[in-house]
Amino acid sequence: MKTLSTVAAMQAVAREQRAAGHRVGFVPTMGFLHEGHLSLMQLAREHADVVVASVFVNPTQFGPNEDLDQYPRNMARDLELCASSGVDYLFCPSAEEVYTPDCSVYVDEDVLSTGLCGASRSGHFRGVLTVVAKLFNMVMPDVAVFGQKDAQQAALIQRMVRDLNFPIEIVVSPIVREPDGLAMSSRNTYLSVDERAQALWLHRVLKQAALQASEGADGSAVLLSDMRALLAHEAPSLDVEYIEIVDAVSLVPVESAVSGVLIAIAAKVGKTRLIDNVIL
Amino acid sequence: MKTLSTVAAMQAVAREQRAAGHRVGFVPTMGFLHEGHLSLMQLAREHADVVVASVFVNPTQFGPNEDLDQYPRNMARDLELCASSGVDYLFCPSAEEVYTPDCSVYVDEDVLSTGLCGASRSGHFRGVLTVVAKLFNMVMPDVAVFGQKDAQQAALIQRMVRDLNFPIEIVVSPIVREPDGLAMSSRNTYLSVDERAQALWLHRVLKQAALQASEGADGSAVLLSDMRALLAHEAPSLDVEYIEIVDAVSLVPVESAVSGVLIAIAAKVGKTRLIDNVIL
Repeated sequence: MKTLSTVAAMQAVAREQRAAGHRVGFVPTMGFLHEGHLSLMQLAREHADVVVASVFVNPTQFGPNEDLDQYPRNMARDLELCASSGVDYLFCPSAEEVYTPDCSVYVDEDVLSTGLCGASRSGHFRGVLTVVAKLFNMVMPDVAVFGQKDAQQAALIQRMVRDLNFPIEIVVSPIVREPDGLAMSSRNTYLSVDERAQALWLHRVLKQAALQASEGADGSAVLLSDMRALLAHEAPSLDVEYIEIVDAVSLVPVESAVSGVLIAIAAKVGKTRLIDNVIL
Repeated sequence: MKTLSTVAAMQAVAREQRAAGHRVGFVPTMGFLHEGHLSLMQLAREHADVVVASVFVNPTQFGPNEDLDQYPRNMARDLELCASSGVDYLFCPSAEEVYTPDCSVYVDEDVLSTGLCGASRSGHFRGVLTVVAKLFNMVMPDVAVFGQKDAQQAALIQRMVRDLNFPIEIVVSPIVREPDGLAMSSRNTYLSVDERAQALWLHRVLKQAALQASEGADGSAVLLSDMRALLAHEAPSLDVEYIEIVDAVSLVPVESAVSGVLIAIAAKVGKTRLIDNVIL
């Protein structure tokens, strides 16, 4: 595995790989890798000849009151995990390498980005889409893999690829969970034992709703009300930001939780904001 | 010359050309081609093995009260001119092919786009940057050529390429003028004989300012005041929108019109909006 830290070096490798006729797969990450990330790398390997991963904690997608400074980092461990997961090139640029001080061009999405996490995280998706567009132009992949865990992000990136015509196939990889059901996240490291016990209810209420829907009780209003009641009863210290049942592509709320629909939840457990979702 | 009308066909050609190791030059246009455009194509040829030109009257860069419907078109003539200018591929998609009805992702620039033409043409540069980003992803050029005539557009596209890390070299080509000095523009076809006589003063006042600056009178305030006085005297029916002396890269107004500085002017002649500029 080769490690690259400059845009020029990354673009030179990208050009070489294209010239050699290799199909390049790309997995962008913010590091502090877990099995969820490794599953993305394995999936990239299945879709490509050469796998590029990036580790970059993108400052522009954190709000002023969010956890940029505290975001967990462990570059030595990330290097080992990438190497043992079959990554061919690991791209880990500095913030200064990625953003010039007077940068002023951004990618914005006006519809899908306004609800769900976008409602509370102003500017977050501008930061996400801009850095992903930049990374796409640095890595020039044929295929890029994103996790279903960040469902709104995955929908937005698919929309960006469609609307800006990036010549890139997007693959969305299923959520990887801990044995107890908690969706894997770098932020899980923030959780105390008690907080983690509460956090498990995010997954449990999603499972309950999916079960109800599979048994024919597919009215969104009832499912949402039952989820909220269960959370209030079992995990009263969870601060629920949203629970929504939406079309998985347009992210527009739907009245019936039919097959293919996305149920998404965000909540704070102590100071830690967690998200989870299920596609029916 | 081959003509392409779908994004899929264009991207297939782009992949073929890259796989063959050819350097691709790109000239995006809105058609109704004149010698200014042809000079861009010749310059693209000097920088590339294969030249792609596009003809697409981009609806998103016209405001609601602008001339989208009246914008001059002559596809048959454009085809001939491209073929005789050594264009290898002419890409002329429909608006429906370029934009899906529910498109929602745009490229925005927050600083350089606010002054000069951006001050009066709300949304214009969002439309320009978005369509150019889309065309870049459709054509995948190594080098793209833009005209200095649209000075703010050229600065913005260079900024977009820098900030979004497009792996594309931008070449800016000098303004081509009619024998009488009028900068070539597809919109010149709108001008009556009288309007054209007035329009010539755009170029003349720029020449006067450049001469004054070359003779040492480089204070921007004096130059601007002299330009305005000359226009008021010689071309009273020109409706001047702006005259500015700015840094050619940042577009920030400068106090001294030193070498490399941009003097830009926009004015309406009757219903026709014209722009012109000079770099000292």
